[in-house]
Amino acid sequence: MNFTPATIKTIAFDADDTLWVNESYFQDVEQQFNALLAKYVSADVLADRLYAVERTNLALYGYGIKGFMLSMIETALEVTQGLISTKDIQQIINLGKVMLRQPIELLPDVRHVLDSLDEDYTLMLITKGDLLDQETKIARSGMGDFFTHVEIISEKNPKDYQQVLDRHHIDPSTFVMIGNSMRSDVLPLLEIGAYAIHIPFKHTWVHEQVQDDGFTHPKFMKLARIAQVLEHFDTPIRKS
Amino acid sequence: MNFTPATIKTIAFDADDTLWVNESYFQDVEQQFNALLAKYVSADVLADRLYAVERTNLALYGYGIKGFMLSMIETALEVTQGLISTKDIQQIINLGKVMLRQPIELLPDVRHVLDSLDEDYTLMLITKGDLLDQETKIARSGMGDFFTHVEIISEKNPKDYQQVLDRHHIDPSTFVMIGNSMRSDVLPLLEIGAYAIHIPFKHTWVHEQVQDDGFTHPKFMKLARIAQVLEHFDTPIRKS
Repeated sequence: MNFTPATIKTIAFDADDTLWVNESYFQDVEQQFNALLAKYVSADVLADRLYAVERTNLALYGYGIKGFMLSMIETALEVTQGLISTKDIQQIINLGKVMLRQPIELLPDVRHVLDSLDEDYTLMLITKGDLLDQETKIARSGMGDFFTHVEIISEKNPKDYQQVLDRHHIDPSTFVMIGNSMRSDVLPLLEIGAYAIHIPFKHTWVHEQVQDDGFTHPKFMKLARIAQVLEHFDTPIRKS
Repeated sequence: MNFTPATIKTIAFDADDTLWVNESYFQDVEQQFNALLAKYVSADVLADRLYAVERTNLALYGYGIKGFMLSMIETALEVTQGLISTKDIQQIINLGKVMLRQPIELLPDVRHVLDSLDEDYTLMLITKGDLLDQETKIARSGMGDFFTHVEIISEKNPKDYQQVLDRHHIDPSTFVMIGNSMRSDVLPLLEIGAYAIHIPFKHTWVHEQVQDDGFTHPKFMKLARIAQVLEHFDTPIRKS
């Protein structure tokens, strides 16, 4: 599958775990959360309970670190039957605040890929999570200027993508989304007739996990690294 | 000051405490929060401490109920020196969850005003807060269809409004914002050359309070109720 500016006009990127590290920070914090509660509950049980609480709260809190913090506190109260110390609750809040201030660690070749595609394509960023947190991450990444449009949305279902495309008068057949989540960055796009490229990250939150071994679709491809994107797009680099 | 569709093309509304009740729910919850902590701290001291914590956390959490919940928990840990019971912490979380599910109580005449202006003007909604919470409130209000554009933004400074206007190719001199906060809905608009109408709500969060007695500006007016907006716009109602 190769794209030229005549077929594809807009290339959209997911942000977390596609352009920069994110899930690793959640997993680090979960390990510290486990350590805090180790005397009450095993890591496996805790992980199950936390995910159950997160999933229940998703409809109220949406995605993002603030909801994760509130769900950790609620899980801690539940699994310790209220025996957790208030010092440890403060510690959970502190873990979340550290996440919110986390420096942005760009994945390899991200700047080069954006810079190469920027000349011939309209670049877009589409991400979900807390509004302010996502905005400050984009600003801290230094990548903001590459994107003509930045869309921070609350959910990544087909109708949400369709709304974004409608808002910018984009024909799905000229649009490709690149991201690390089959569930959020690939399947909804194929459903609305757009292209999608899956670039797995080493860690995937259980909520985003979809079995994709051997998945094929005429508008889909899977790549191992973001640098390989350039092999499939007609860019100044390839022309030279 | 009277507007015709030849001068003003876009009318933007703030949402919370302009179209529907919001601050009253925060104040109700603060009273319940006071009651929970009454044996540790007076209501006045607690209000001061909570606002101090909220203000410090604003740069990390942004506006909205999730940040308010986290700030209430942090304040409770602080003012009780960790002596608050875990049952009461769960109770704070429950208060926040009730807020997130609060039914939408439209202010008087809102539907009539939007319906009257809709025919001759482009209507826009501009609000700040948690993304998902604001989206679901707009959906629950039943007013969503009146708005050609809905903008949920993290801050309402002049540059944030300028970005919104640029995104929609709107000339500020053809734009009026209507809202309950001098700080968020009026002053930044006047600064970028747009019009603004202030309609105070009975309660104002201390963070949004600006002394405005006797404030005058050629592009500003203050009204007591949203129904009075119609007296200043050329609409089918006034034409008939």
